[in-house]
Amino acid sequence: MADHLLTPRTRIDRHAERGSHDRAVIEAILDEAFVCHVGFVHDGQPYVIPANFGRAGEVLYLHGSAESRLMRTLAAGAPVCLTVTLLDGLVLARSAFNHSVNYRSVVVIGRATAIVEREEKVRALRVIVDHIVPGRWDEVRPPTDRELADTTVVALRLAEASAKIRAGPPVDQPRDRASPVWAGVLPLSLTPGAAVADALTAPDAPVPGYLASYARRKE
Amino acid sequence: MADHLLTPRTRIDRHAERGSHDRAVIEAILDEAFVCHVGFVHDGQPYVIPANFGRAGEVLYLHGSAESRLMRTLAAGAPVCLTVTLLDGLVLARSAFNHSVNYRSVVVIGRATAIVEREEKVRALRVIVDHIVPGRWDEVRPPTDRELADTTVVALRLAEASAKIRAGPPVDQPRDRASPVWAGVLPLSLTPGAAVADALTAPDAPVPGYLASYARRKE
Repeated sequence: MADHLLTPRTRIDRHAERGSHDRAVIEAILDEAFVCHVGFVHDGQPYVIPANFGRAGEVLYLHGSAESRLMRTLAAGAPVCLTVTLLDGLVLARSAFNHSVNYRSVVVIGRATAIVEREEKVRALRVIVDHIVPGRWDEVRPPTDRELADTTVVALRLAEASAKIRAGPPVDQPRDRASPVWAGVLPLSLTPGAAVADALTAPDAPVPGYLASYARRKE
Repeated sequence: MADHLLTPRTRIDRHAERGSHDRAVIEAILDEAFVCHVGFVHDGQPYVIPANFGRAGEVLYLHGSAESRLMRTLAAGAPVCLTVTLLDGLVLARSAFNHSVNYRSVVVIGRATAIVEREEKVRALRVIVDHIVPGRWDEVRPPTDRELADTTVVALRLAEASAKIRAGPPVDQPRDRASPVWAGVLPLSLTPGAAVADALTAPDAPVPGYLASYARRKE
């Protein structure tokens, strides 16, 4: 398992100082995200579709309806790109040109493979559910054979990837530094609200602990 | 200007009840987002890159370094896909299979065109900056000729697009409805924190109003 996921196709050309190919950096960003954007090509046209995913070691799992074009394309082993982006803040500089965004993103490229064996498929679905809400899988009804048949699950090896990170205050040019304009960062974070039980949940049922203290960032 | 952005390529096949091709629905989602994921193809490999954007009427603008592969590909008029996704909540059902995410997404496809005329380029950059932080452009130093030369700006017509929206509580199957498992929604939203001035900003400088009350959703 390579610790460095650099290939000629994942080299960072722009703002190389923001780039990383370190597996630990890439995995930490992937683990904080739970939605990715998957790119594939159909008739020469690229499509980018949001999807959930999970990670177990060096494998990323995706799932979806067996009839969707996205999953059929992934299962066929076509070239794909999986990108996640975490937004950390708006960067307000003294010039329009130096405005930026604080973010952490990962781009993974490769070809996925379909998971057909039942136990492996269930294990991958557990990885996806527990990636989004750790601990949830063990409390809910597992999938039936019919549900499994209706679901395509694919694995994408985390072998060719890059991370890009921008953090910190704006970087203004010397000529702008005496400008009286307010400059700095507006932090942003994806924040959970109070959990809302559905109508079938008993009114006195406690909110599960994994929701009451839900946080994406692993401490 | 068509009010309906349906084409054979933007038909919604899966969960068609969640789909829309209505221009007003699509524009509202685009206007709440400020980061998109742009897909393009290079040597048969799709790439998906996060980018800022802005909208003026039926045109989306993107900008970036003139030397980046993304901007060179966009400016060359290659087929592209621009996707935005707003995350509204986690949907926790009583079965693993019926778990979902509440979200609003838009997929736009087409070919971009480079903007070369100076005034039009400046206008497009203003659209992008003010899309992210309304009112910011008028306070900061505008771009120099050199900065404009280093920046590629492209326009993508909002002509072929679809929206997809999932909202509301989990939908469990009849067999699961008596399950004692807590089910419902954990709302999520991208939330601003307190603005952090940089070291060059005067300690007594007030935080601009557009940051103190920053909100993506237009009321």
